[in-house]
This record gives sequence, C-alpha cells and structure tokens, in this order.
Amino acid sequence: MREFAELATQVMARCETLGTLSQDPTCLDRRYLTEQHRLTNQLASGWMIEAGMTTWQDAVGNIWGRYTSSVPNAPRLILGSHLDTVPNGGKYDGMLGVIAAISLVAMFDGTQTKFPFNIDIVGFCDEEGTRFGTTLLGSRALTGKWQDQWRFLKDENGMSLEQAMTDFGLSFDAVNSAAISRTDILGYLELHIEQGPVLEQENLPVGVVSAIAGAKRFNFTVEGMAGHAGTVPMSMRKDALCASAEMLLAVEAISLQRPGVVATVGKIENAPNGVNVISGRTRFSLDIRSEDNDLRDSVLAEILQKFDDIAKARQITLSREQTHSAPAVHCDPHLKQALIRGVEESEILPRVLASGAGHDAMAIADICPVAMLFTRCKGGISHHPAESITLDDVAASLSVLYKTISKLQHA
Amino acid sequence: MREFAELATQVMARCETLGTLSQDPTCLDRRYLTEQHRLTNQLASGWMIEAGMTTWQDAVGNIWGRYTSSVPNAPRLILGSHLDTVPNGGKYDGMLGVIAAISLVAMFDGTQTKFPFNIDIVGFCDEEGTRFGTTLLGSRALTGKWQDQWRFLKDENGMSLEQAMTDFGLSFDAVNSAAISRTDILGYLELHIEQGPVLEQENLPVGVVSAIAGAKRFNFTVEGMAGHAGTVPMSMRKDALCASAEMLLAVEAISLQRPGVVATVGKIENAPNGVNVISGRTRFSLDIRSEDNDLRDSVLAEILQKFDDIAKARQITLSREQTHSAPAVHCDPHLKQALIRGVEESEILPRVLASGAGHDAMAIADICPVAMLFTRCKGGISHHPAESITLDDVAASLSVLYKTISKLQHA
Repeated sequence: MREFAELATQVMARCETLGTLSQDPTCLDRRYLTEQHRLTNQLASGWMIEAGMTTWQDAVGNIWGRYTSSVPNAPRLILGSHLDTVPNGGKYDGMLGVIAAISLVAMFDGTQTKFPFNIDIVGFCDEEGTRFGTTLLGSRALTGKWQDQWRFLKDENGMSLEQAMTDFGLSFDAVNSAAISRTDILGYLELHIEQGPVLEQENLPVGVVSAIAGAKRFNFTVEGMAGHAGTVPMSMRKDALCASAEMLLAVEAISLQRPGVVATVGKIENAPNGVNVISGRTRFSLDIRSEDNDLRDSVLAEILQKFDDIAKARQITLSREQTHSAPAVHCDPHLKQALIRGVEESEILPRVLASGAGHDAMAIADICPVAMLFTRCKGGISHHPAESITLDDVAASLSVLYKTISKLQHA
Repeated sequence: MREFAELATQVMARCETLGTLSQDPTCLDRRYLTEQHRLTNQLASGWMIEAGMTTWQDAVGNIWGRYTSSVPNAPRLILGSHLDTVPNGGKYDGMLGVIAAISLVAMFDGTQTKFPFNIDIVGFCDEEGTRFGTTLLGSRALTGKWQDQWRFLKDENGMSLEQAMTDFGLSFDAVNSAAISRTDILGYLELHIEQGPVLEQENLPVGVVSAIAGAKRFNFTVEGMAGHAGTVPMSMRKDALCASAEMLLAVEAISLQRPGVVATVGKIENAPNGVNVISGRTRFSLDIRSEDNDLRDSVLAEILQKFDDIAKARQITLSREQTHSAPAVHCDPHLKQALIRGVEESEILPRVLASGAGHDAMAIADICPVAMLFTRCKGGISHHPAESITLDDVAASLSVLYKTISKLQHA
C-alpha cells in the first residue's frame, strides 16, 4: 500500500490547506456563497486541472472536474462530497471525499489509465445548511429539487439566499440548470469520515455503508403545574420536569433494547426554570433514526405509547409536533458489493454499517445509484476542531476506492 | 363569626387598595425603596392611626404602629408581615398579615379593650428580596443582622442599596438603629397565606404553623460526552441528560417515600442542547426542605449517594456546589398552643403544618418567640395575580387571632 501512502500524504496536506480557508479567523467556518467558498472552488479547480481534468462551476456553486473517458459519449461516474463546514468545524468532514477523489484521478492520469466512463468529481457548495438553515443545497440542485420559496431564506445577517447568489455571481432563477440528467450516470460514490465511533471500536480503517438512516424528529410539550418548591407536598405535585425525565429514560431504555435504532433527546427547555419553583412546563426534542424505516416506526410507536402511559399516570398533558421525516436511503447493492470487494482486495476485513448522519448521497440517490465508504475518525468526533483521521486510514481509503473504480472499468 | 365577617370585608377591601400600588402598570410589582413603597407606608400608617395607634417609620423603611398598653413600661407583642411583592405578584402574600392586624386593633380600639402589653404592628418593607437579590431586609434590620457589604448590592438598573436608601430619605449607615431590644418582646405573631395546597385539600380555613422548613440548595453539573445523535450507538453513549433524568427521578422517588421532606429540581440547563446532538453536559438545581433538619439531611445523604451510584454506573462525572443552607425555625410552643386554642375556640379543627416557604418570622425568631397562622389560599397559588383567598377564611383568621390575643391578655 506504499503508493497510497504517498497519495495519502498529499490528501492530508490539502485538507490542511483547505482548513485555513475560513470566514472566522478563530475557527474553521466556511459557508455557502462566501468569499471562502469562492477561494475553495478555485483551489479545488486548480488541483483538478493538475490531475488532468477539465473543470467548471455549476449554477448553484458546486465545483466540478471531469477526467474524460476514452470512449465518446461515455456515461459518468460521479465521485464527491462537500466543501462547506459547520462553524467551528473540522478539516475532514466533506473535504476528504473531494480531495481524495482528486488525488485518485491524478494517480490514474499519471499512469495514463483511461476508463469507459467519465470520472466526474463534484465538490458540493452546501451540505451542512449552516448559512440558510436548509441542508444539502448543493446536491439537491443536481436533482432538480430546489424550491422556489428558498429564495427568501435568510442568513443570520438577514441576507436572502437570492441576494447572496446574485452577489456571488450566480442567479437563483438559473439554478435549475445545475440539474443533471439521470440517464447517463453510472453511479455516485462518496468517501466520508464516519462521524461515529464504530470503526474505531472495531479497529478497522474503513467501512462500507449499507444505508443512510431515515430520521424522524418531534418536539414534545409537557404541561404540569408549577408550584412553590417548599409548600406543595410531593404527593400533590404535577412536576413537568419529572414527567419529562421519565420519558427521556423511556426513550433510552426502549432504544437500548432495539439494535439498529438510535433515539436521542438532545434538547430540553424547562419553565419557569427557577431553583425554588416546581416545573410547570417542559419542551423536549426527539430524534429517532434507523436504516430500517419499519423498525424505526415500530420503536417510535413503542416510545409514544410509553409517553402516553406516563402522561396518564402523572395526570399531565402531553402534546407533540413532528418537525422532520425522511426515509432511509439504501445504498445500491452493486456499488456496495464493488466497495466490499475493494475493501477485501485491500486486505481489510469488510465491515458494513449504517450511516446515522445525513450525507449528499442521500439527495443524489434521487437520480442514480449511490454508495459510500467511511473512513475511521478519532473518537467518532466530527463538527469540532478535534476531528482527526490518520494517514494510514486515508491510504486504506484510497486503496479501496482505487480497486473499486478499477473493477468498474471491467464491468 | 358575624362580627369578623364585617372586619374581613374591610381587610379584603384594603388588600384591593394596596394591590393598586404598583411600579408596573401592567401587574402588581412593589419593591423596596420605591415611590410605591412610600405610598404603601403612608396608607398603612393612615389606617393604623384610624385604629387608634401611633405610628413611625424605622431606619430601614418598615412602617410601625403602636396600640398602647394600659400599663406603663409594658412589653410588646408584635404582629406583622411584609408589604412588598414579587413582580407580577398577588394581593395577599404579606399584605394580609399587616392589614388584618390593623383591623383587629381597630376592633379592640372600638371596644376600648386594653392589654397589659403594647400591640405593635409592623409592615416590613422587604421580604421578597426582589429588588436587591437579598431577602428579608426589613425583618433582618430589626434583628441587627444587616451586613455592611449590602451597601453595594445593586438593583437591575445598577442603583446601589446605599444610594436607593439615601434617595428614599434613609441612611444605610443609620440602619442599625432599626434593631429592637429583645428584652421587652412577648413574641411575634404573623398571619400569612399558606402558599400551598394543604389546607384547601383538607377543607380547612386556617392552619397553625409548626416550623418554617430549613432549606439546602445545590447546583449539580453532570459531564458526559456530546456526540452525533445519528452515529453513536446507544450502547456507546455517555448522555449527560439521560444521567440527569435518572437523578431527577431518584430525587422524586426518594422524597416521595419520606414524608416531611420536599425536594425539587426546578432548574435545568443542557448543553449543547441541539436536536441532533447527544447531551454532553447538564446543570441542575436541588432544593430540599423539611421542618426537621436531621430528616432533611438524612434524605439528602440518600439522594447524594444515589447520584454517585448513577454517575458511577453511567461513567459520567458529577460535581456539586452548595448554594444555600438554612436550618428550620421552630415556632414557640406557647404561642403555637395559644393559636391552636384560638382555632378551637373559633370552632375550627386545629391543623398544624410546616411552612415550606420562608417568612419574616424566620428572621424575627433570632430575637423573640414567633408563631404563625396560615390562611387557606386557592389552589395553593402565590406569587401570581391568581393568588386568591375568601372572605370567610379571612373572617376565620381574624377570629383566631382575636381569641389568641385575648387569651394572651390573661396569661
């Protein structure tokens, strides 16, 4: 794997370089339609040209490079990920998938290796959704899934998406031209850091993604009765926070018993939230995910039933509002199998795991087969400056992608 | 009890009148050293003079009235409560005790009833502590317990206590002259609304207070590990909010099993508090009270042990900070017995209950015997515009106090 070690060194160095392009001098923060977005596209474009590719920026602001096929009118294999970050983010979430793909193409170009398909690399301009509060703007433009009302989305300074596009030199009304035809795509392959601790726990450099979990999200409101912490006997209380605590523990207990599902109460607000006042009202969120929609919904039903039981027993009122629902996206069996072979040929134990996090592949699955390879990341940490990967794991990832793409050549 | 019904009507009307003196036109809010404090003292002083009393304002801003004894150099029986309110408060918390005492004295004056002791009524200027963040300023001035550093306490507009006193026409440096001699006080009797639901639950108009509960307060910090709600398997989590939920339920379960103690987690803060982020850190408060200090401390020890067990089992770190500690204040057995006789003579079932809330009597206990009578309040609600009492219950309260004081005459 020596040749991949050298390539991995280049990938790591380029991640460092991109990691310096931040709108905030104190941390890495690179959002859609900023000066740093423009610089990042220029830098990526330069690396693509060095790798023997022709490049262009599409109507939404994604940067593209094409390593042209030896065959006229060839279909396209798309490799990519995103180039934006969250505020105070890490250097690998997104970037790794774009930069590794460019280095791979440079390797093919160095050996004059040509394919019966074009290799298109895309660096998506917005996956995190940090600036305008709506995620996957870059990849959804490819699929023709942009919505006209998004023109009014505003950033934290009150700038509309439409105006920000204009200022960047793009046009909201032209964004449909970024949509690509689904007829000539072989598939979409995305390399991404795991953002979870499973590979590290199992001491594996990479893993093949089975599916991107479908999530449902709710806000619950528990109404009890506020009261004086000193004067209301324990037996006469309707403590909203205690009721919520029981519900939280039910979420944890139920999902611990049902492998393949994760359920999280990440947000809670309590009122009046005074040291000497019994809680009268709490609001909390629930995020539940699984690669198996039916399993997720069955666990959700069990949780909701338990919530109702708790509310009844405690004589408090419970209401809920669903804020999000997305089905699981399954990776393409053929592409997934090709990745597994690539892992095996790299002499790594093939581990297939679900992605609990969302990715561009989730959007792209609308128009073509998708597959994903995960790279182990330290402590499962992402969206944080401590995000970390090793040179060896990058080399392993490059090896797997190299072998996978080489096999596709002969398919 | 017809004669007390008429008196009760006067008390209710005067509560309404005082309820109009507010620094905030949208709700009742009357704080220490405001124009409304001054007006309230003037109004109370006028009512006292009508009741045959001589009046004065002391060095801290409490308003006093004396119904002079028939005996020279007689000791004093003090009746009182406070005249300040919380923001958006009710019309009875505090005021009832002052106004009812004035009407009682008016009744004694009307029948030329004289006592071998002076009846002194005090309307305390600050019990709630809302303006300067420190409670019981009025009653603590009587006991000589003011602290020199309080001069620097600031209100929400940055005005120091010292300056506010000067502007009001008082002097911080003269406040010690409000302290009263403990040698000539027979005792302190305070009528107050219950601020809890016990009397209503038991269908009783009044109750005699056994003790004012001693409280301890803590802040706990739970440190787990934040993580992605989608990617960290349930079994690998260190969810700070789930650990806190388990601790909250332990507080509830343990104190439910130990009558005579109330324990409340009223405040919780969660970080990062994101819908899709596993909780990494929570902070929550604990307020625990009992009229029995030993019982309270034994329940507290049980709770703390359980917290440690939970922290250990979940491999999270737990730290705590104690923010408050006050011992229980027991009412004087003789005065309490006199109140119980007063209740019985009013043909009411005597019910003795602890006060979970703090009161001026707690401070005054430093210098003389104290006792308290509670009036039932609707739904146990206080510190809220919905605070409500009935004419009948006020009449019953007046009857009890009348009979109690009359008995003291012959003691």
